[in-house]
Amino acid sequence: MTPHYTTGFRRRVNALRKRMTLYPDAHLDTAWIIQPENRRYLSGFKAADTQITESSGSLLITQDRAVLVTDSRYTTQAQTEAPEFEVLTIARSLAKELPDILGTFGTRHLGFEGGHLTWETYHRLREAFDAAPRDVELHPLNNMVEDMREIKDQTEREALTDAAHLISRIIETVAADLRPGMTEKEVAYHIESLARTGGAESLSFPTIVASGPNSALPHAVPTDRKLKEGEPIILDAGVRLNGYCSDMTRTLFLGTPRENFRHIYKIVRKAQSAAIHAITPSILSTQVDQMARQIIDEAGYGEYFGHGLGHGVGLATHEAPKLGPRGPVLLKEGMVATVEPGIYIPEMGGVRLEEMVAVTPTGAEVLTPNQNLYDF
Amino acid sequence: MTPHYTTGFRRRVNALRKRMTLYPDAHLDTAWIIQPENRRYLSGFKAADTQITESSGSLLITQDRAVLVTDSRYTTQAQTEAPEFEVLTIARSLAKELPDILGTFGTRHLGFEGGHLTWETYHRLREAFDAAPRDVELHPLNNMVEDMREIKDQTEREALTDAAHLISRIIETVAADLRPGMTEKEVAYHIESLARTGGAESLSFPTIVASGPNSALPHAVPTDRKLKEGEPIILDAGVRLNGYCSDMTRTLFLGTPRENFRHIYKIVRKAQSAAIHAITPSILSTQVDQMARQIIDEAGYGEYFGHGLGHGVGLATHEAPKLGPRGPVLLKEGMVATVEPGIYIPEMGGVRLEEMVAVTPTGAEVLTPNQNLYDF
Repeated sequence: MTPHYTTGFRRRVNALRKRMTLYPDAHLDTAWIIQPENRRYLSGFKAADTQITESSGSLLITQDRAVLVTDSRYTTQAQTEAPEFEVLTIARSLAKELPDILGTFGTRHLGFEGGHLTWETYHRLREAFDAAPRDVELHPLNNMVEDMREIKDQTEREALTDAAHLISRIIETVAADLRPGMTEKEVAYHIESLARTGGAESLSFPTIVASGPNSALPHAVPTDRKLKEGEPIILDAGVRLNGYCSDMTRTLFLGTPRENFRHIYKIVRKAQSAAIHAITPSILSTQVDQMARQIIDEAGYGEYFGHGLGHGVGLATHEAPKLGPRGPVLLKEGMVATVEPGIYIPEMGGVRLEEMVAVTPTGAEVLTPNQNLYDF
Repeated sequence: MTPHYTTGFRRRVNALRKRMTLYPDAHLDTAWIIQPENRRYLSGFKAADTQITESSGSLLITQDRAVLVTDSRYTTQAQTEAPEFEVLTIARSLAKELPDILGTFGTRHLGFEGGHLTWETYHRLREAFDAAPRDVELHPLNNMVEDMREIKDQTEREALTDAAHLISRIIETVAADLRPGMTEKEVAYHIESLARTGGAESLSFPTIVASGPNSALPHAVPTDRKLKEGEPIILDAGVRLNGYCSDMTRTLFLGTPRENFRHIYKIVRKAQSAAIHAITPSILSTQVDQMARQIIDEAGYGEYFGHGLGHGVGLATHEAPKLGPRGPVLLKEGMVATVEPGIYIPEMGGVRLEEMVAVTPTGAEVLTPNQNLYDF
């Protein structure tokens, strides 16, 4: 019970408890956490939910208890991975057991994750609570845990750096191995193999390898198209390592790039560099987006940069903060996000460059080593 | 307009239209399909949703229109893959555009997927409709499309058989390659590599390789533990091929299995065989579960079989019907499900055997060839 000895997980649970007391409409006495990354962030429990309809467990957090509710498939794993939590094994679905469990807690105001809970489960719970003798009010947590996850602690920064370095080494190796005639699928598989042998738990998202005209599609899926000289080849990939994700993009050329691609490459690189240099605590996410967008606009390619500049990265590949033209967020020390401007010319091709950067007390640190970047 | 010439997708859309008119509380004039497997089942559109919060599109189906709503990243893919659908490209989030689109349809009663739509999106839509001039009632579709997917048509049966054969060949190869000293992760990676080179789009779920005491965890994640002689090694894997999933499990031994494992292996095998032989149209799912469970109970291991006997397989790895001790469902010709009893003794080890079976007019057909099964 010494307050100074707190693991990262205990510290996080305590931070959530504090936020629960500050909830605007009601003093939330219990928070119910079902979202897999939030669950892992608070408890250390690593299990994945194989489908949205199949939960491997959830957390119930009050001011004095921290309970991980799971079923017999996961009891041992939960006890090992989440030692700060009491593990409660239930036999029926949580929606059925929850009213009774919350009865033992004396819960009156339950916070739930409205962005993850389905309408159906909400509806069933509401009915069960209505039928129960004691009244329980349900309140959406409004991204309470997602907001905490925006700022990475030291452990998380290290994990993200490791994940960024691994994908960076992989892309360096693959870049050196590219040859005309290889297919996009072969290149994607090469990345995937190196991820596995490099110790990654998995890819953090399906790898994009897009060559020639396919590079004009920001979310291209690898095809049997063969790589050719002079055309852009976009590699966009990431790994999950110790739970944390990485995400980076390089646009590569075999032989001499065609002049038009050199031209847009230089613009994208300049836009990216300007955005990274603009990052610092207290700047708005929209201002950073604007730094890059303005350069692309002024070069006459504004209509060909159709997506946001970047997104937060952590336990999820895409998380807060978003760096885009809308929804301003004040950047803070400890945030980690991608900076990934691109120019995509339909049917011709595109260029995208993506780094992962961490916001430091005075600026930004690039976590993805700056290799494989052309300096035309 | 010849009624005899209908593709599988058009037939499915028409079957849904019929069900919409039979909805109990209201005549549903529009169904909104967001669940990725349901979307693919009805339209052919193959795109995945990379995260639950990121949709690649959804379907709006009325008695005379079939529209696939997507954004510019997916327009071309949608037009190619879903030729029976009008493709509508939108720029903002669907929750924002939906009220206007439904206005052009004259929608009054919208069916939505309550098991997939989040509370938050539902809530936002409800508010948007309340603010709109025309009233739209929202009705949960109550698994309307999932129910259709329970019975597989001939094309689906063939796709499932292909996927079952591929994972079966892979497990046969891997079983022959197993050696003491290999790690669980290496074995899992071997399975994954063969899946890729064998033409699979992806694994249908993260591969389980669990050796020794790890085999006592039904949902074990592969570790760096080295395989040893005499211990059980559970391989549980599946592939997605042409959209359809497979799922099978073998428990293997290097050298001579220890006597206790031979003993539980024989019980599991007997339980599985009894369940498969019991399957036929018009038997209840709970009765099939009971056939296996009773054998394990009577052998004194009832408490070590903590999960249901099996689950339907199709476009999703886990879908209806569930074969478990609760929730009786009448089996019907054309259903495809796993039969996977197991006995798991904590800290010692476990045995699980899993086949995919199709319900035929007179019994069950095993889709996973019966290799790598010991006959002690």
